[in-house]
Amino acid sequence: MVNQVQRVDGSFQASKSDSSGASNSGGESSKDSSRCSTPVLDADRTDRLHDKMRRRMESGDRWFSLEFFPPRTSNGAVNLISRFDRMGSGGPLFIDVTWHPAGDPGSDKETSSMMIASTAVNYCGLESILHLTCANQTKEQITGHLAKAKRLGLKNIMALRGDPVADVWEEEECGFNYATDLVKHIRWEFDDYFDICVAGYPTGHPEAESYEVDLKHLKEKVDAGADFIITQLFFRAESFLKFVKDCRAIGITCPILPGIFPIQGYQSLRQLVKLSKLEVPEEITSVIEPIRDNDAAIRNYGIQHAVGMCRVLLETGDVPGLHFYTLNREVATMEVLKQLGLWIEDPRRPLPWALSANPKRKVEDVRPIFWASRPKSYIYRTQDWDEFPNGRWGNSSSPAFGELNDYYLFYLKSKSSKDDLLKMWGEELMNEESVFEVFTNYITGQPNHCGHKVMCLPWNDDPLAPETNLLKDELEKVNRRGILTINSQPNINGKPSSDPIVGWGPPGGYVFQKAYLEFFTSSENVTALLKVLKKYEPRVNYHIVNVQGKNTTNAPDLQPNAVTWGIFPGREIVQPTVVDPVSFMYWKDEAFGLWIEQWAKLYEEESPSRMIIQYIHDNYYLVNLVDNDFPLDSCLSQVIDDMFELLDAPLEAME
Amino acid sequence: MVNQVQRVDGSFQASKSDSSGASNSGGESSKDSSRCSTPVLDADRTDRLHDKMRRRMESGDRWFSLEFFPPRTSNGAVNLISRFDRMGSGGPLFIDVTWHPAGDPGSDKETSSMMIASTAVNYCGLESILHLTCANQTKEQITGHLAKAKRLGLKNIMALRGDPVADVWEEEECGFNYATDLVKHIRWEFDDYFDICVAGYPTGHPEAESYEVDLKHLKEKVDAGADFIITQLFFRAESFLKFVKDCRAIGITCPILPGIFPIQGYQSLRQLVKLSKLEVPEEITSVIEPIRDNDAAIRNYGIQHAVGMCRVLLETGDVPGLHFYTLNREVATMEVLKQLGLWIEDPRRPLPWALSANPKRKVEDVRPIFWASRPKSYIYRTQDWDEFPNGRWGNSSSPAFGELNDYYLFYLKSKSSKDDLLKMWGEELMNEESVFEVFTNYITGQPNHCGHKVMCLPWNDDPLAPETNLLKDELEKVNRRGILTINSQPNINGKPSSDPIVGWGPPGGYVFQKAYLEFFTSSENVTALLKVLKKYEPRVNYHIVNVQGKNTTNAPDLQPNAVTWGIFPGREIVQPTVVDPVSFMYWKDEAFGLWIEQWAKLYEEESPSRMIIQYIHDNYYLVNLVDNDFPLDSCLSQVIDDMFELLDAPLEAME
Repeated sequence: MVNQVQRVDGSFQASKSDSSGASNSGGESSKDSSRCSTPVLDADRTDRLHDKMRRRMESGDRWFSLEFFPPRTSNGAVNLISRFDRMGSGGPLFIDVTWHPAGDPGSDKETSSMMIASTAVNYCGLESILHLTCANQTKEQITGHLAKAKRLGLKNIMALRGDPVADVWEEEECGFNYATDLVKHIRWEFDDYFDICVAGYPTGHPEAESYEVDLKHLKEKVDAGADFIITQLFFRAESFLKFVKDCRAIGITCPILPGIFPIQGYQSLRQLVKLSKLEVPEEITSVIEPIRDNDAAIRNYGIQHAVGMCRVLLETGDVPGLHFYTLNREVATMEVLKQLGLWIEDPRRPLPWALSANPKRKVEDVRPIFWASRPKSYIYRTQDWDEFPNGRWGNSSSPAFGELNDYYLFYLKSKSSKDDLLKMWGEELMNEESVFEVFTNYITGQPNHCGHKVMCLPWNDDPLAPETNLLKDELEKVNRRGILTINSQPNINGKPSSDPIVGWGPPGGYVFQKAYLEFFTSSENVTALLKVLKKYEPRVNYHIVNVQGKNTTNAPDLQPNAVTWGIFPGREIVQPTVVDPVSFMYWKDEAFGLWIEQWAKLYEEESPSRMIIQYIHDNYYLVNLVDNDFPLDSCLSQVIDDMFELLDAPLEAME
Repeated sequence: MVNQVQRVDGSFQASKSDSSGASNSGGESSKDSSRCSTPVLDADRTDRLHDKMRRRMESGDRWFSLEFFPPRTSNGAVNLISRFDRMGSGGPLFIDVTWHPAGDPGSDKETSSMMIASTAVNYCGLESILHLTCANQTKEQITGHLAKAKRLGLKNIMALRGDPVADVWEEEECGFNYATDLVKHIRWEFDDYFDICVAGYPTGHPEAESYEVDLKHLKEKVDAGADFIITQLFFRAESFLKFVKDCRAIGITCPILPGIFPIQGYQSLRQLVKLSKLEVPEEITSVIEPIRDNDAAIRNYGIQHAVGMCRVLLETGDVPGLHFYTLNREVATMEVLKQLGLWIEDPRRPLPWALSANPKRKVEDVRPIFWASRPKSYIYRTQDWDEFPNGRWGNSSSPAFGELNDYYLFYLKSKSSKDDLLKMWGEELMNEESVFEVFTNYITGQPNHCGHKVMCLPWNDDPLAPETNLLKDELEKVNRRGILTINSQPNINGKPSSDPIVGWGPPGGYVFQKAYLEFFTSSENVTALLKVLKKYEPRVNYHIVNVQGKNTTNAPDLQPNAVTWGIFPGREIVQPTVVDPVSFMYWKDEAFGLWIEQWAKLYEEESPSRMIIQYIHDNYYLVNLVDNDFPLDSCLSQVIDDMFELLDAPLEAME
């Protein structure tokens, strides 16, 4: 990549894809606070959806996208969010969430279209399109929905007319009668803020006078300001290809994405056909009817049919991406994508933690390490920040974290049921050692004495990270003795940024880490630990706090300690995680709270099991340790060993 | 170091020496732009002078300080600034510059007290005290001087009465009659902005009614707001010790620094005694009179006498620091300080480049590498910035550099005379190769064919840095062939921050560098180089520009590339130097300008020598190369070798 920069008479002309870096002439003083602007590790974080599409089309990279509908129940919401996380790993360019007028779609309910789309953007880091229909709504209601969507960080709207309430469409006086009106309204009220998508009908809208009139309406929607088109589903590649040709012929130039519907079952197909008033071609019904009661066979056929159709589409070279109607299911769509080679689980991460797609967080590139296993909780507690740390965490800032009183927000909730949790963490706890065992089993991956594997802990909703596996043996040893580890990372001295386990950031770089260990432990252990830590000054920084906030640290001037950083070609240093003594005080409330909210409350009040957890909550300390000497072997196990040695020694050694 | 942090009811009580890090309670959103605040690598950069004294007294570290008077001539100013740099390396806590009413002391003249003190602060990075006398000045004039001092970044004032114009002091109506009035005025007009020093007279002020009355006046000055006292010179330790005892007895509690005057010659002693109306004790005159014509003998005596007296003072434990009347000379004072063990040339640097002591630059911790050998010029060209980069250089900022039209500002001027420069760089140049030889001789340290060593180049006012010596052989080879290097650094992969050559920053850290090479070379070489560089994508970032601004780079999105960084215990990452493609366009004007301003102009207009330099200026390119693969052996020599290989190959290879 070569940029030409010309300076003539003190002014630059820079050939740049973004406008942010163009420089002005000399003489003025620098005043902007943009000094610490993002190094744009990942252009996808800053580009708008239609720019991402343009870049993909320019480079010839095909993409896919996924459509979901909002769930009916609160449990369904929890499951859908997990599905977002899983399907997000295959690399969709975006997802979209349909608008269900009957489901209070603009509300704060956990099942509303608005909240599901917001969660996808903010907590799952997915570029998302919120559908919006104008039928049966006033202008004010629509403006209200759009304003709310913007406030929540949504950037893309699929503008639809929606279905009439009555069978026959009646023109409304104050509302909108056509999607075109909605597109115009969005542009009028919100200028270019939203990317707008509209629907195309490869075989004509069922209510349109004719295919040609329908095409004219589509042209009007695009002229009103739509950025791209997603089509209704269709069963023959030719339908779509003819439609695209006809669109181009009347001057529609924007991207047109085919809506792919992998047939997944006989009933769902029938229902969809009824709703969309589409006809299923003979060549499909003739295959399906004989196997209508064999779900697996129908799904296999659906996959095979979709793959075949997509191949035809992609081979034309005119189809930049495929849009999938998932029906909120994973298997069929993933299988089609895998067969097409579009499902790419890219182990590369732009940063070591999961990003949010909210535009106000696009410059964010530093977080405290404490929330490493609870990124959604971190995003929740910082959602009201006006500015996000970039380049440095900073030491004179006052990180004002929101309280986390509601541990049961659907996007923060554990994926496991109460029953499963009891099986993993023990129906009945005998003593503190029972708790040590749960932690140990989580680390080792071995089944507990009832034969259940411990797949999660209140502080870790997922099985052990591959990186933590590097420390497995050490962690097992110390958990067995009551060093209850909840977060750790090994030291890394310059591994390639492409390393499959610890790598992140653009290629050609090097990543580094300081060894980190965070755990709960008894006050007896802490007393010994503090004696031992004196020997490790200034190599080891520590921070020790109990639930009341009684707190000891050797952090110089309460400054943050960078514990993960990366060096990349042609860029400034990136240091995405820090141990920040001030944030740690906010984290400890959450970390201690999880003992009670997620564990103790599984048991009856006054029950011995509950009292054991309560005792730990009330009496243990939360400790974090950083070994600053990242080029040497980590000394943190040695610190713990020394602590146990001191505890095992005759009493006078403790003096 | 252990900080106790208590959080009770959501609020912190942090035991911190500075107020900046105290955190407020949760619930508010973070809004401050202080996110990127400095990691305070060096508390000395942020503390006020009286705080530095307090910290030194608490830790028992003795200090020294140096007094200078403003020069008479412009050449004297250049020499004094060099002396500041040399004597600054011994580690004075501060220097002070006297106020010469006859020398237009508040003006912008290069010999004025104001400009000399400002240069010491801004360009030499020295904590400085500006003297200010109130005699024969109106309130408005004094306020004007103080406002100007503040504007220039001066933070400390020595408040003095000054000598009357007439022999007898006449009370003025609108001005001030006593230093006390001046102290009050400073506090009234500028609140706590300035640290204020006042003068004490161990043997009483010559005009005071009595020693006791004089002490009372001193108490008034301190009560009016002075922070510390520096005494007039004295010849016997007992005089000072009695004086301190008497001060303490009447309630003066601030630091009292003895003014030490190493006798340096017979005439200067006589003159000083006359001015200060002091009596030289018999035990001194009896030694000096017999050797009055032997300067060396007197100076040796003066050193020995001063050392003896200082030892007595320091041994009492009541003297926290020594103030030296240098008479703008180096040898005697340095010798005394060395014998006392107070002269400590600390090779540790807080950052790899020379700091400024201007308070508005105290958070500055990133600079472009281009000005590495011209830090004063960099400070000059950025003096009008309101904000300085901290943490990151940033890519969307518009660094607005001031023009450098006047290469002859006294603090930017070469220390060498025109004659010396001609001897080093050639009385007569024959061709471009003569220029190559000058560069080569600078690198090797070998004398040129006339027997003169090349001690400086227009881009390097000092002999080769020890760090550059690491690359000496490679640099010699390429300069000989017309790769005229002006800046370079080797790659460093994690050396201790205490490394005597490449180390910087607090102890216990690790420093890193990417290999960097910057040079002028012909357009033929550049053509070949660009072909070669294709093989080194994306490992090597380059930037190539000629005097007209014709420019090629492969910097991604014109982002800065961090080329020096450090990792320290308990701190965020520090990255003090970057290669910034935007700043490079400003630097190139200066770098090309130096060919003409400092070299071509040594020769007659139209002379062949001048035309050779002019030709290079007009036709050569300025190139910088960064090898991003810092853990591997640098490939930059290989790049140059490949370029020469391509040039040496038969013509078709260049196609």
